[in-house]
Amino acid sequence: MSDGISTDELQLAQRNAGMPLEALAWPITPAGLHYLLIHYDIPAVDARAWRLEVGGRVERPLALSLDELQARERVEVAVTMECAGNGRARMQPRPVSQPWLGEAVGTAVWVGTPLAALLADAGLRADAAEVVFTGLDRGVEGGEPQAYERSLTIDEALGCDAVLAWNMGEEPLLPQHGYPLRLVVPGWYGMTNVKWLHRITVVDAPFEGYQQIRGYRLRTSDDDPGTPVTRMFPRALLRPPGVPDFMTRRRFVEPRPCRLEGRAWSGWGAITRVEVSTDGGATWTDARLGDAPGPHAWRGWSQTWEAPAEGEYELVCRATDAAGNVQPLEDPWNVGGYANNAVQRIPVTVTA
Amino acid sequence: MSDGISTDELQLAQRNAGMPLEALAWPITPAGLHYLLIHYDIPAVDARAWRLEVGGRVERPLALSLDELQARERVEVAVTMECAGNGRARMQPRPVSQPWLGEAVGTAVWVGTPLAALLADAGLRADAAEVVFTGLDRGVEGGEPQAYERSLTIDEALGCDAVLAWNMGEEPLLPQHGYPLRLVVPGWYGMTNVKWLHRITVVDAPFEGYQQIRGYRLRTSDDDPGTPVTRMFPRALLRPPGVPDFMTRRRFVEPRPCRLEGRAWSGWGAITRVEVSTDGGATWTDARLGDAPGPHAWRGWSQTWEAPAEGEYELVCRATDAAGNVQPLEDPWNVGGYANNAVQRIPVTVTA
Repeated sequence: MSDGISTDELQLAQRNAGMPLEALAWPITPAGLHYLLIHYDIPAVDARAWRLEVGGRVERPLALSLDELQARERVEVAVTMECAGNGRARMQPRPVSQPWLGEAVGTAVWVGTPLAALLADAGLRADAAEVVFTGLDRGVEGGEPQAYERSLTIDEALGCDAVLAWNMGEEPLLPQHGYPLRLVVPGWYGMTNVKWLHRITVVDAPFEGYQQIRGYRLRTSDDDPGTPVTRMFPRALLRPPGVPDFMTRRRFVEPRPCRLEGRAWSGWGAITRVEVSTDGGATWTDARLGDAPGPHAWRGWSQTWEAPAEGEYELVCRATDAAGNVQPLEDPWNVGGYANNAVQRIPVTVTA
Repeated sequence: MSDGISTDELQLAQRNAGMPLEALAWPITPAGLHYLLIHYDIPAVDARAWRLEVGGRVERPLALSLDELQARERVEVAVTMECAGNGRARMQPRPVSQPWLGEAVGTAVWVGTPLAALLADAGLRADAAEVVFTGLDRGVEGGEPQAYERSLTIDEALGCDAVLAWNMGEEPLLPQHGYPLRLVVPGWYGMTNVKWLHRITVVDAPFEGYQQIRGYRLRTSDDDPGTPVTRMFPRALLRPPGVPDFMTRRRFVEPRPCRLEGRAWSGWGAITRVEVSTDGGATWTDARLGDAPGPHAWRGWSQTWEAPAEGEYELVCRATDAAGNVQPLEDPWNVGGYANNAVQRIPVTVTA
């Protein structure tokens, strides 16, 4: 990738956190290692004063306390979540925003209540078209003062197993993950999963907020209205083997059989294949597929690298999903730098 | 600061996590927002098989399980910890390593057992000179394969309230903070606080490991042996007021009285003064000092910015400690990019 990250990009890189790839060791990402992309500031919310308001084109507007939400049907769902900008910094020319290399991912067990049932209780009016989710985080983006807001169509909101989540595993949401409540939409890129959620508004026309029609669209040029970013394209990640060099992160592996293992996911269907190359993508062999923490979470995979000789290698892995999507070998490009699911490449030195 | 962060630096910036500065709202940093600097990989440790070995120049070598350690005297200490490289990316020319801008800090309540009593039980021999702490994290740095290791002199080890910690607040250490055990040395920069600690070795001569004699020294040139990095120099940080622009992080504040608040710390003595400037350092007024979570943790401070008129401002804050250390206005420089405690500067637009 091109060098020359700017101060603005570095500021974002330091406040937004990637998942160090050795954390692929855990099927559920430990607290504090799940990736974080926070557009504005993390709000410090007083949950006692907080309410979730449900309004707009509904029959019965609601205002629910956290206790009232927690008295509703309780579900748990393991979800792999990835930032839509993951891999942006590898695109050329590099779109200027949070410069992810490939580590913007994590898997958590979210505990909450189904969105669809709450919307049913509020009663969607006949002209309901979309559902807008508004967070408490505020800032300026593209010159527009705004609260972070995203929408789903009615079909998406009712059909995607979306959860209003108050716990991450056994613990209440950490402030940075949206305390006291966030939206979790399995299979979609992270921008959909509105944090610090405090208002749900049913509207009768397509939502035209900044994060819906300016941000998070796949555009070929500034003039292109583009298409919306929605579900996660397939990606496999390899837990880097051996030990790293501090500065370059190059890996050093001993010349004996080496277990290669990682995880793979897609928002378009189950992972059906993971292939591994130890020669930079010239030849491939299939990895053995393992378990997933749930249908919306990444699936383990492994392969043994038999008797590598001393020398320099480039390890590559590539996932395919049930919808037939395959990871590309080369980085795609679009104006906003979204949905780059090109294969991961890990330089390795085998040395005794 | 200079632009042009390299791919190597960006890889480090994405895997090491800063504390977003709005987290200054909390006196104890929420889990997952404390800064992280991890030289190699985070080890996944099986605590049942793990033992802490104490050996070398001692009368009674020890091998203690986590249960045995937890049966010893239990102490809790609130500690503000900062990376020695904090502010490195603002130095010119920029030393190439983890490119912190100023966010490499956090405060936690560490729970563990005193180091001094454990060393007393092991019995220091008459020729004991230093105590070496070895972690389970391994990698290559400066061309040298190594485990992460640092030492303290006997006087330092016995005199600095050091703790062998297994909890961070109510919870066992997270993997990334050193599970199952780490060293915590109040007042010292982060490199001293060895994570994934598994061996304590008392030696009869100054330790010459990489992290002691090559890394973490203040050098004026590559030929200069330099002086060791030890305790944290004073620093005040302001919680950025108003709301941010996503990309530039410039702050937008309304033209009415604005509460400015932050926290300040030093490893050399209590914070005795915090000054604030709203005009880039031309004029200063004293902030009101508040409480600290403990004697080894940051102290709150605040000031009201009365009736700012619309326009552009640069907010600056500056701390002084009881030892007479004052934060410099300009960035210092040294080869490794350590201990840059120059004042924080926050550009602000006041607008209705």
